[in-house]
Amino acid sequence: MKPANDISASVIGRLPRYYRFLCELQNSGTERISSAELSKRMGLTASQIRQDFNCFGGFGHQGYGYNVEQLKEEMAAILGLSTLKNAILVGAGNMGRAVANQMNFEDLGFRLVAIFDSDENLQGLKIRGIPILPADSMDAYCAQHRPDMAILCLPQSQAPEVVDRLILLGIESFWNFSHFDIHAVYPGANVENVHLSDSLMTLSFKIKNKETR
Amino acid sequence: MKPANDISASVIGRLPRYYRFLCELQNSGTERISSAELSKRMGLTASQIRQDFNCFGGFGHQGYGYNVEQLKEEMAAILGLSTLKNAILVGAGNMGRAVANQMNFEDLGFRLVAIFDSDENLQGLKIRGIPILPADSMDAYCAQHRPDMAILCLPQSQAPEVVDRLILLGIESFWNFSHFDIHAVYPGANVENVHLSDSLMTLSFKIKNKETR
Repeated sequence: MKPANDISASVIGRLPRYYRFLCELQNSGTERISSAELSKRMGLTASQIRQDFNCFGGFGHQGYGYNVEQLKEEMAAILGLSTLKNAILVGAGNMGRAVANQMNFEDLGFRLVAIFDSDENLQGLKIRGIPILPADSMDAYCAQHRPDMAILCLPQSQAPEVVDRLILLGIESFWNFSHFDIHAVYPGANVENVHLSDSLMTLSFKIKNKETR
Repeated sequence: MKPANDISASVIGRLPRYYRFLCELQNSGTERISSAELSKRMGLTASQIRQDFNCFGGFGHQGYGYNVEQLKEEMAAILGLSTLKNAILVGAGNMGRAVANQMNFEDLGFRLVAIFDSDENLQGLKIRGIPILPADSMDAYCAQHRPDMAILCLPQSQAPEVVDRLILLGIESFWNFSHFDIHAVYPGANVENVHLSDSLMTLSFKIKNKETR
């Protein structure tokens, strides 16, 4: 396997798609799939898939196709899904609650262990059995429990101060729903940004330009 | 301006970021910004920014920097934000409600006009004044009101049938939170996918590989 640093962002970005697709194949009872069929159904060229897999040493035997279950397990291992990492959620507004309620964290490599919000009306409530704790207890909680990752569902204005505190507490990985650019301040942090507004604007662009084509 | 078809997905993907950044600059009272300062603050090279802008005919005068307000307006026009497109939301579960409550649609080129859900307990409720209508009234609504876009916040299992219906009703643009691969079935559709699970798995990969570096 190549060192992870040498694997391009676009290859890394395709890994979850492969994994999802393999889960679907397995659920539908498919045991083996040829490179050609995999490429057709995923809308990628066979050569692209081979190149992607070669970053991880390659899998299976092309002539006989890939063993679906085995490839899925290898993909899960590459993605680190079997080692659950503890995550805290900061901000239990609409988006935070949707994320807490909706995501199958334990299938995706994480365990949601605590939720923080500064709104006193939310405190004491639970989401999926996880209590919403006061925002000012976050530092003590993190110092004691050392979570691996923080999910940021708070307004951009509050994000810089919270990220500063979390970095000081040793958290260096963020699933970031705020628009605060963490990398601009902490270039070494592990960040996955979810920019819903950007996605909607991109769709606006596509609609505008489809109409005038 | 290049024909939109000739502009790469990565350039298009950066447009919302430029727009967001210019809004922030304007809100902070900045009237002009040099190419060098823009590149530094956005973490892109100055040459990259010039190449991106040249896809749209270039803007402003480099020697004097860019006029922030003017550049923001041009970016908004390119993104089509000033022409509001009518959107319906299908699926008012946790994610659908979060999207309906959270997004500033009218700042992002859209107007949310109706919400559909098959759960009878939700019907008659309103989100931001928009009623949740029965799923089986969707066809009649769309035939009458001709919305431009559908936001899909429903389970993957329900998505194929709903997309078939919407395509028949003339809707060809989707903001897709389900994992159903619309392009595999309708390659000509305008789709922006939001794959939250993929994003979380990518973060899992980054954490795993940061640890072993």
